[in-house]
Amino acid sequence: MDFPTWMSTIQQRTEAALEAAMPSPELAPARLHEAMRYAVLGGGKRVRPLLCHAAGAIFGADSQVLDAPAIAVELIHAYSLVHDDLPCMDDDVLRRGKPTCHVEFDEATALLVGDALQTQAFQVLSNRLVGVAATRQIEMLHLLATASGSRGMAGGQAVDLAAVGQPLTIGELEFMHIRKTGALIRAAVLLGAHCGEVMPDALERLGHFANRIGLLFQVVDDILDAEASTATLGKTAGKDAAQNKPTYVNILGAREAKAMSAKLRQDAHDALEPFGESALRLHELTDFIVERTF
Amino acid sequence: MDFPTWMSTIQQRTEAALEAAMPSPELAPARLHEAMRYAVLGGGKRVRPLLCHAAGAIFGADSQVLDAPAIAVELIHAYSLVHDDLPCMDDDVLRRGKPTCHVEFDEATALLVGDALQTQAFQVLSNRLVGVAATRQIEMLHLLATASGSRGMAGGQAVDLAAVGQPLTIGELEFMHIRKTGALIRAAVLLGAHCGEVMPDALERLGHFANRIGLLFQVVDDILDAEASTATLGKTAGKDAAQNKPTYVNILGAREAKAMSAKLRQDAHDALEPFGESALRLHELTDFIVERTF
Repeated sequence: MDFPTWMSTIQQRTEAALEAAMPSPELAPARLHEAMRYAVLGGGKRVRPLLCHAAGAIFGADSQVLDAPAIAVELIHAYSLVHDDLPCMDDDVLRRGKPTCHVEFDEATALLVGDALQTQAFQVLSNRLVGVAATRQIEMLHLLATASGSRGMAGGQAVDLAAVGQPLTIGELEFMHIRKTGALIRAAVLLGAHCGEVMPDALERLGHFANRIGLLFQVVDDILDAEASTATLGKTAGKDAAQNKPTYVNILGAREAKAMSAKLRQDAHDALEPFGESALRLHELTDFIVERTF
Repeated sequence: MDFPTWMSTIQQRTEAALEAAMPSPELAPARLHEAMRYAVLGGGKRVRPLLCHAAGAIFGADSQVLDAPAIAVELIHAYSLVHDDLPCMDDDVLRRGKPTCHVEFDEATALLVGDALQTQAFQVLSNRLVGVAATRQIEMLHLLATASGSRGMAGGQAVDLAAVGQPLTIGELEFMHIRKTGALIRAAVLLGAHCGEVMPDALERLGHFANRIGLLFQVVDDILDAEASTATLGKTAGKDAAQNKPTYVNILGAREAKAMSAKLRQDAHDALEPFGESALRLHELTDFIVERTF
């Protein structure tokens, strides 16, 4: 199977699993459920589920087992986008080419949508049908929580918030992104590996790989934000500069940011070396992250 | 040990466990951690932890095992209060006698505080040191998630939001409260029982008890909101009426609401009958819920 076909297969099964995990819009409270579905379904590249499935494949994990952690991570990601877009945060009106959740519904609903999506992530991953040993499942739940909380994603958000208009060093910028984007990308990779027969040293190596692509993802995002158009991105372009947010591009300049992205890409490929052919999809995803235009 | 002494013992150990579970304000991001601690520590009656410990006591659960679910439920409760108080929700400025989180800090921080406290709840309950069998722990995590999500607490919030200014029937009001307050109170009781040697029929009976006191809690809250002062409550009194929110008092009248509270109190005591002396603390907590003045 070539990469585009594999990617589309995983995206479709992720969409189906998300659809099945979301409460029906016919159940009360109907408006909340409708808004949750609006925020989650029918959009997004599903990079985190793709990483989860690709990492699981190295260790022979079953796709059906991988669906639960894949969508749990995606639900955390979706909740963070809904809350990020709120007026008291980034105050954005466009996401994945559609009006943001609080614009389409209202602020209070969007707040509850984010809250309920986070819960849904833990509900999905604590289902007894997930199909891994219970002790392993507990570890996975703890890993997801740690990646999402105040020392992970939410903490990265807080640093980002505090950084607006502040001159940051490259080190401080990295500290923020390792949490804000990196923690959940790392969780996606490690959760996938946990679904198969993985040994501690392989987890450590994958963790290193994940840290590289987490940063890579962000550097590329900054380059795209600076260079692409709103129509291509499906979200407001040039926002970081307009909000005076520190980015790799405005700290390093575009040329240096691109060199950094090339270096991270090479590091990521190198970290996968010992896994040989089994890591094919992770190699391909690494290239996809760099070469994407949206 | 008399009831006030027992209550104060549990409150103190809950405070200590919460203190230990919260990230240090010296860790980055410091402001977020400071705000999380502000929202959680040094306030509140800790009704849910009390219920968790009291239910666990029936089945011989160890207090040290009970601490984790007790504070996990309290963290979910605390997150919901922070988000409830936000301008786009209830827009309240006073909570537990102090400025609300977004007033003391800012809106974006309060949003992240609520998000991170929810995550912290699942982090605490997925710790491998919790001390129950892994399969049981998974069940407990799923129970907490189900109680907190769109079919539980967050769903109740959404119904509450939609109900402002709407005439509700008693049935609709009950539908809302079973979710908004009841689901988490029920989770507190059942999680406590799960920490001990509990059989399915006892869980069912406890579930019935919990449903009664969940409603009881809300009816008493409505009576207090209508009759007590802001100083006594530590939160803004008379708010429900001012916001034209449906309450038991404004649907049934004060006299009928009090009769309902007496009936629920009796039902709750009756449901505990088969547990004999071992349910002493739950009996006492039932009375405490009715007789509290704050």
